[in-house]
Amino acid sequence: MSVTAPLGFRAAGVAAGIKQGGARDLAVVVNDGPSRAAAGVFTANRVKAAPVLWSQQVLAGGRVRAVVLNSGGANACTGPEGFQDTHATAEKAAGLLLDSAGEIAVCSTGLIGERLPMEELLNGVETAAGQLSRDGGLAAADAIRTTDTVSKISFRRGEGYMVGGMAKGAGMLAPAMATMLCVITTDADLTSDELDAVLRGATATTFDRLDADGCMSTNDTVLLLASGASGVKPDLAEFEEKVTEVCADLARQLLVDAEGASKAIAIEVVGAASERDAVTVGRAVARSNLLKCAIHGEDPNWGRVLAAVGTTDAAFEPDRLNVAINNIWICRAGAVGDDRSKVDMRPRDVTITVDLSAGAASATVHTTDLTADYVHENSAYSS
Amino acid sequence: MSVTAPLGFRAAGVAAGIKQGGARDLAVVVNDGPSRAAAGVFTANRVKAAPVLWSQQVLAGGRVRAVVLNSGGANACTGPEGFQDTHATAEKAAGLLLDSAGEIAVCSTGLIGERLPMEELLNGVETAAGQLSRDGGLAAADAIRTTDTVSKISFRRGEGYMVGGMAKGAGMLAPAMATMLCVITTDADLTSDELDAVLRGATATTFDRLDADGCMSTNDTVLLLASGASGVKPDLAEFEEKVTEVCADLARQLLVDAEGASKAIAIEVVGAASERDAVTVGRAVARSNLLKCAIHGEDPNWGRVLAAVGTTDAAFEPDRLNVAINNIWICRAGAVGDDRSKVDMRPRDVTITVDLSAGAASATVHTTDLTADYVHENSAYSS
Repeated sequence: MSVTAPLGFRAAGVAAGIKQGGARDLAVVVNDGPSRAAAGVFTANRVKAAPVLWSQQVLAGGRVRAVVLNSGGANACTGPEGFQDTHATAEKAAGLLLDSAGEIAVCSTGLIGERLPMEELLNGVETAAGQLSRDGGLAAADAIRTTDTVSKISFRRGEGYMVGGMAKGAGMLAPAMATMLCVITTDADLTSDELDAVLRGATATTFDRLDADGCMSTNDTVLLLASGASGVKPDLAEFEEKVTEVCADLARQLLVDAEGASKAIAIEVVGAASERDAVTVGRAVARSNLLKCAIHGEDPNWGRVLAAVGTTDAAFEPDRLNVAINNIWICRAGAVGDDRSKVDMRPRDVTITVDLSAGAASATVHTTDLTADYVHENSAYSS
Repeated sequence: MSVTAPLGFRAAGVAAGIKQGGARDLAVVVNDGPSRAAAGVFTANRVKAAPVLWSQQVLAGGRVRAVVLNSGGANACTGPEGFQDTHATAEKAAGLLLDSAGEIAVCSTGLIGERLPMEELLNGVETAAGQLSRDGGLAAADAIRTTDTVSKISFRRGEGYMVGGMAKGAGMLAPAMATMLCVITTDADLTSDELDAVLRGATATTFDRLDADGCMSTNDTVLLLASGASGVKPDLAEFEEKVTEVCADLARQLLVDAEGASKAIAIEVVGAASERDAVTVGRAVARSNLLKCAIHGEDPNWGRVLAAVGTTDAAFEPDRLNVAINNIWICRAGAVGDDRSKVDMRPRDVTITVDLSAGAASATVHTTDLTADYVHENSAYSS
């Protein structure tokens, strides 16, 4: 279903020869309207890839006719020539669609610091444009994979409209394991301002709370495109709920497929004085390499949780902290609690609950364990 | 030489039975004066172990007669009982030295969240007190090891006085791989205020710029004790230089022995608008798991350097960043520079130079690579 689940969208995914080995590496998603309203959120990294700089300009206009996405190269840190390559990609797609390059967004993912093979890429755009179809969503989702072992797609049905999406990578905006790219589509009819507000709300509580390895990509991009083809102007609260569900579903798929991970760890912070405090604490715990190693070793090492909490400026008293791992409160009042041997660490899903005893706010941050496979994958693969 | 290199100090290191297996696990360092002036710096973690809370009170008085250090248990997150254990340790040493517990500092390292075996520990203090000698420095340095494969000691000779030191662990204050404990001694004659200023200066540019894995311990402690036994009141600038050299030497030894590391990475940030910017950028690069994996794989992946730089608020323009790895400028003006195949990644020491092109300030942060051995050591060992 993916991005072509809603009416008004066509897509294609082809092997353009950007990647070695003949796998799909180029996708095009086209919005046939009648509306072209769109919104985007981009990496907070100050070192932004050429396609991010380009697409930010496009999205400033609030309208997107098509998105060209490639794997096999990030086109980041490639200087003015790299920006010209992105521009040429948009012009190519615009020519094929008889439209304006200013409404063509571009996304890239792969190795930083190398120019893209432009001849292959531009030929690929032409091939993809010739294969655009209402059921091209799966091929498009396949073409944007890098180290992803499976495609990530999702959809939800609203009152008279659909929301569909595809994604690759793991992490986002603040954090990122590898670049995350995500395109979400809908046939509901909304303005770009409405889409922008919905997308910011949805990503803040989903992708933004995914922190696989604390690294932030130069290329992260999430786009939300509305064709208006259903003719339905949705209830905004319901629409945001559907978009958030699609984002949460995709985020979950990214986490499960994170590079080298053997555990999916949910860090629930409760009893916080503010949501900001809860997220801060959750992120600090999610970034503790020592803790992530312990969880990999199925060791319910709550001392490492407290050590991470202690690095933050959140409101708490050390002797009022409680920590549960998989619902066993092994730390109470900042000291030893229930018997750690009661904690069953065998399931893939691990929940760490941190009670700050400082208020009523809460938030959950998701991460993975740190494994020898992660080290192997990221030391052997130049990305 | 270690802590007994300067006149006026005796030390001992014994096997008290705190650790399994009969290795040395308890050290005592005694200052026989005539001065007892002392200063300390402690972990910035808000979750502080009982011995840190205790020793901060002791150091507030500016005088230390003796330090009791144990490995085999951190006495962190052990509640009021843990604090009483530390108090009892200080009282025991005070009784044996016929002195006041208020001038006995205590340091602990090992597993968080477990009470210390107090009978063994107190007997160990008694045994160690009976073995105190002018050449006990090496045994003391041996007794504070946890995962350290070798003892870390150092000394420097000043104009008529000595500075000696011992350390264990890797990292400090902001960062820490495992708890770092360090005791530095001198027979120079200085006030506690002078010692405090010198120690803060020396640690800020040495231990504080060591960031093995971004984790911050609950127990990190660095103490500087002056016996005044040489009768020499040193030139303060020269004295700070000697203490800084001892700290730098110990920091280097910690880095080389860091858990599971195969590379020692120096991140030199130059062209920064301020020293604070340089340290901020160095630390961000040092904390990139993706980069640390790449260096482990001997891949000069400068894109991951730029991605880390881009997460900071330091003054820089992305298209003016230059990066060298082992002196080959593989990134110039934010894009591809010299041929990456020219970079020799085989040596253990790797230098990454980041030129922010934004000013004249600089700083160097030291870290290690991320290896499967690190994962193994920290997933198999509950600390």
